Amino acid sequence: MLKISQRGKQMPASPIRKLVPYAEAAKKKGIKVYHLNIGQPDIETPKEMLDAVRRADIKVLEYSHSAGNESYRKKLVSYYKKVGIDITPEQIIITTGGSEAIQFGFFCCLNPGDEVIIPEPFYANYNSFAIAAGITVIPITSYINTGFALPPISEFTKLITSKTKAIVICNPNNPTGYLYSREEMEELKSICIQHNLFLFSDEAYREFCYEGENISAMHLTEMNEHVVMMDTISKRYSACGARLGAFVTKNKDVYAAAMKFAQARLSPPGLAQIMGEAAVDLPDSYFFKPKSEYLERRNLLVQRLNAIPGVYCPNPGGAFYVLAKLPIDDCDIFCQWLLESFSHNNQTVMLAPATGFYGTPGLGKNEVRLAYVLNVKALDAAMDCLEIALEQYPGKVICTELISEIER
Amino acid sequence: MLKISQRGKQMPASPIRKLVPYAEAAKKKGIKVYHLNIGQPDIETPKEMLDAVRRADIKVLEYSHSAGNESYRKKLVSYYKKVGIDITPEQIIITTGGSEAIQFGFFCCLNPGDEVIIPEPFYANYNSFAIAAGITVIPITSYINTGFALPPISEFTKLITSKTKAIVICNPNNPTGYLYSREEMEELKSICIQHNLFLFSDEAYREFCYEGENISAMHLTEMNEHVVMMDTISKRYSACGARLGAFVTKNKDVYAAAMKFAQARLSPPGLAQIMGEAAVDLPDSYFFKPKSEYLERRNLLVQRLNAIPGVYCPNPGGAFYVLAKLPIDDCDIFCQWLLESFSHNNQTVMLAPATGFYGTPGLGKNEVRLAYVLNVKALDAAMDCLEIALEQYPGKVICTELISEIER
Repeated sequence: MLKISQRGKQMPASPIRKLVPYAEAAKKKGIKVYHLNIGQPDIETPKEMLDAVRRADIKVLEYSHSAGNESYRKKLVSYYKKVGIDITPEQIIITTGGSEAIQFGFFCCLNPGDEVIIPEPFYANYNSFAIAAGITVIPITSYINTGFALPPISEFTKLITSKTKAIVICNPNNPTGYLYSREEMEELKSICIQHNLFLFSDEAYREFCYEGENISAMHLTEMNEHVVMMDTISKRYSACGARLGAFVTKNKDVYAAAMKFAQARLSPPGLAQIMGEAAVDLPDSYFFKPKSEYLERRNLLVQRLNAIPGVYCPNPGGAFYVLAKLPIDDCDIFCQWLLESFSHNNQTVMLAPATGFYGTPGLGKNEVRLAYVLNVKALDAAMDCLEIALEQYPGKVICTELISEIER
Repeated sequence: MLKISQRGKQMPASPIRKLVPYAEAAKKKGIKVYHLNIGQPDIETPKEMLDAVRRADIKVLEYSHSAGNESYRKKLVSYYKKVGIDITPEQIIITTGGSEAIQFGFFCCLNPGDEVIIPEPFYANYNSFAIAAGITVIPITSYINTGFALPPISEFTKLITSKTKAIVICNPNNPTGYLYSREEMEELKSICIQHNLFLFSDEAYREFCYEGENISAMHLTEMNEHVVMMDTISKRYSACGARLGAFVTKNKDVYAAAMKFAQARLSPPGLAQIMGEAAVDLPDSYFFKPKSEYLERRNLLVQRLNAIPGVYCPNPGGAFYVLAKLPIDDCDIFCQWLLESFSHNNQTVMLAPATGFYGTPGLGKNEVRLAYVLNVKALDAAMDCLEIALEQYPGKVICTELISEIER
């Protein structure tokens, strides 16, 4: 009997995608499902990006440079300059989505058995990439009553061991939408310098900040050796399917190691790089429309959620997610029930159970993530569904603890 | 001081790309360099594939299914049927190039410390992916005097330990061009069944067979649990830059594990999948032209090489590579010398030192790989350069052993 590997067994199934069969079954019954479960925006991919591919005069679609086309890396330098990040083309490796950038970071900087500290709730696939790399994720809990702010330094210090090699942040955050303040970024800097840690900074949602300024890890001084920035065009330009990201670091050893991994897989996607160049050429005004659209949606969603009895949703500063506490016994059961047993005017809503975003077992059981990737009308209808669903759900609980928290 | 990981250190630099700076310097001096060093064909990517992308009506370039678009997987089923491979869409995962398919196989089927046996010389990046996965490559030597035929079963048996979990083949082979016979494939089957091993079969060059039939690992009976096929459109349709491959297996556990890795990285490149669908729609006659072109090139190259005193080149049955023995002391020094210190009519040739394709240290020192990815006129000129270079090269050696081999 042939056996698969241990990591093949340990690798978690996607916490979101496991609900897909229930959504498909609901649709087969003729129920409209509002998909607030995944970070796939409905915003149109800029036509200029697709037109650039349509116009491209390609005879042979060749391998690009393993670090990505130099022309694209040069353009990215000008993009980063606009957001206050000063780098050179030789500090960028173009990757297959942000996913590959995260993998390069884990594989190049950590040995099997090493630990990374990640504020939870966190993007579930960090866990998957950690399992692939044989490293251990040490979660540090952030709490809904602070809007998922960075845990205090003292909490980090408790978790740091000789095996700790890095801290991973996502800023603005997926799944919480939290935007780290300058003070919090400085705190992270001090921890990394004091304990000699890498800071892996996933900045996929940089442009979508609604409260305050986005502080990149690359803005921190004296951190050149520590910072590895993971980036992607997926969310910024609503081009998730392109699979185009970037691995950015000023640490020469890390860059050289990542280049060897990049050479092994030959090159990043070719047509997507053409899209990426066109994206940099978009006018600065491009972001105004999607950003104001997301802001309007966030405002509606937060208002509607907090108006439902027993629901609490902090007002997040960025990205396009909110994480809300619901008066329910178990979010996995609830999200399945929404698809399997509930409908309102032949409609229902698909949410992401928050349990999948926590590393600590048992946390997040009464929380869900909502991605505001649908227009305000659809969001409004989805909230109508949720409101009525919470009245009908058999596993409804009155969360007195939560009420007292909010009243504080 | 922050340190990179062990695997980051162990990861070999690309044996081919390390010569690139010397090629660039030669070009700056005005010397024309014939690139026979990499498997980047000059054949045009079919216009139909690029037109399909140009015509595609895309509003939002969304994530595709993690296994790839169902429409593409269904089309691939019809492509595979034509080459005698009977599979379903649920046995295919679309990958980011063949590279990702190889990685999925290593990560899903092998634990760190496990061993894979690979006939050497082999595609150098197998080694890189093995290092990333923490597994050990055990090379089994194939020899130029047999044209790099499969080593006898008895040699495999000597190398099999309790840690051996898989055999990796590339058929037709990169770097040797060797095409495994039905008998050899049956031998591999018997080893895999007897010793309970996976058979990873890289079939990137399936269409380019000039002597005899291509026997896919998927053609072998009673091997459903054992075979993982790695595939790519890169070489088949001269679309290396698209980064589109496939991971194919009938082993349900392996498929399920690979799907979790696929979900973690979200989806394969979107535009490339449109190209992939259009590729399947190409008429069966499409391959006639590139295949006859490659055959003409191979014939010229093998004839020219064997006409040079002291050179021996077997006549390979497939792919677009030959591996030749040269009367030289050290192929790494020779290939660098060609770029750094030689020119003929202001031209030179860039070759891949064979040392990079061997796992056993010291082997391949007087061998080079030549990719026939240039037209016959360019190949002819490149052979003129090589012939004269071998007269002038200071490290020339008379290889009597080789001469006696050929005379036998």
